[in-house]
Amino acid sequence: MEKISKAVIERLPRYYRYLDELRSKGVSRVSSKELSAMMHVTASQIRQDLNNFGGFGQQGYGYKVEYLYDEIGKILGLDKKYRMVIVGAGNLGRAIANYGNFKNRGIEVISLFDQNKEIIGMETAGGKIRDISELFDFIKENKVEIVALTLPKEPAKKIAKQLKEHGVKAFWNFAHTDLGLGDGVLVENVHLSESLMKLTYKISKSQNKES
Amino acid sequence: MEKISKAVIERLPRYYRYLDELRSKGVSRVSSKELSAMMHVTASQIRQDLNNFGGFGQQGYGYKVEYLYDEIGKILGLDKKYRMVIVGAGNLGRAIANYGNFKNRGIEVISLFDQNKEIIGMETAGGKIRDISELFDFIKENKVEIVALTLPKEPAKKIAKQLKEHGVKAFWNFAHTDLGLGDGVLVENVHLSESLMKLTYKISKSQNKES
Repeated sequence: MEKISKAVIERLPRYYRYLDELRSKGVSRVSSKELSAMMHVTASQIRQDLNNFGGFGQQGYGYKVEYLYDEIGKILGLDKKYRMVIVGAGNLGRAIANYGNFKNRGIEVISLFDQNKEIIGMETAGGKIRDISELFDFIKENKVEIVALTLPKEPAKKIAKQLKEHGVKAFWNFAHTDLGLGDGVLVENVHLSESLMKLTYKISKSQNKES
Repeated sequence: MEKISKAVIERLPRYYRYLDELRSKGVSRVSSKELSAMMHVTASQIRQDLNNFGGFGQQGYGYKVEYLYDEIGKILGLDKKYRMVIVGAGNLGRAIANYGNFKNRGIEVISLFDQNKEIIGMETAGGKIRDISELFDFIKENKVEIVALTLPKEPAKKIAKQLKEHGVKAFWNFAHTDLGLGDGVLVENVHLSESLMKLTYKISKSQNKES
């Protein structure tokens, strides 16, 4: 299990999502051909990817949806529970707190923090918005596996560094910057404007073709 | 310019972001070695990537930051203007409307749409929230290059299909599903829960190593 390529890992959450759709529709078995048609990936790619994890399939019978869903879930670490804190309780932070899907997957938002006095105390789907001055004490007193950063870049970098010193090991970073925390922490970035630039690239390229 | 690999395109917005940071700090020249240290990419990778676009660099003098920033911006289509509409004006939709960075890059949010009567009429950074029943007329009357979908998956799929019929060619999709629109439209997905699962995967893997 150690040598799984980054490309396969990148695809696993997508498999997981499709298997989730299938099981919620009550489908119990799926062939690599059917998955292939849904996911726009070749059937042989699917077989090869799933072989990384011991296969799960039987030739001619397809994959057991529920079983495969559970196994991929375990690989993705979703058989465990994670407690998340969101730093930055603006629209983006609150959007994440509201996102019910996470809770189904064992990720629970236990608090949000902000410096804006106008929203401190407000109840959200992820609990009460607390004053950011209470953040480090909260981290000391509560087991927090993930910190989501929905802050502008300079405060995000500063707080991430302090949180690392307080023992936080995993960051979900929405700030438009790399946190530069060095080794010993895990970071997953969501750079929204980079995603949008990929779209403007495609638009621009398609317009150039037309003209 | 036609045969640029997907991997290079994926890296361009990141180059653009770093060059933006350099120019805002007043740096006028940067070597591939310096960029390499900032970006954690090898210097030879950087030279190779930038050579795809004719290089821009002079041996021994490094790259001109402003020039390279502008050129990559052009490649990413950021020398043009885009008008964007956001469908779904909940926290996520409003977070995107508030995100000032986009406007600097020529992408202007001109309206938000929602079905929630409680927020229709509310003013946001992206203009007034309009009733979703006005969406198709609005699209007919206004030149809209990009529609951002910040809706649950079933309504997102349905509205995307109708918008395609109304001539919309580019979607920025935040719904937890593939839109399945087929050819003739450009889609860039932001699947937040897939990003989070990549983080839980890393956490789970690092915990397994420790134990």
